[in-house]
Amino acid sequence: MCEANVYLMDEDGKESLLLEMVDKVKPEKGRIVLENIFGQQKIVKAKIKEMALVEHKILLEKVLPKSKSKANE
Amino acid sequence: MCEANVYLMDEDGKESLLLEMVDKVKPEKGRIVLENIFGQQKIVKAKIKEMALVEHKILLEKVLPKSKSKANE
Repeated sequence: MCEANVYLMDEDGKESLLLEMVDKVKPEKGRIVLENIFGQQKIVKAKIKEMALVEHKILLEKVLPKSKSKANE
Repeated sequence: MCEANVYLMDEDGKESLLLEMVDKVKPEKGRIVLENIFGQQKIVKAKIKEMALVEHKILLEKVLPKSKSKANE
């Protein structure tokens, strides 16, 4: 199986595990919809920072409400 | 190994294979930087539409220069 563990990076650059064994990842209007192989869903206000699939790792970065200046990214 | 195949969807909704055996995916200022397990790199003006890791599939969507109205996504 080729699911990944999803980590969320906060404003201080600290990473914490958000959801394990994630199969589906879908960005949607500034949020990321995650679903793992057990059918658990999580929706977070974040964007994808980087993914390393061979390491089974997806890193998300929190989207701050005030960061409109980054809207073009 | 848990790499994925990356497909690019064009304006007509047609999907074509962009890069196989992708390990690293990194969004960067409206572009996506891809790197596969052979060290091949590709950079495309696109955004991630959805990922289904168990199916080894990542779908990107072309970013059109005029689509500034979608900048908040």
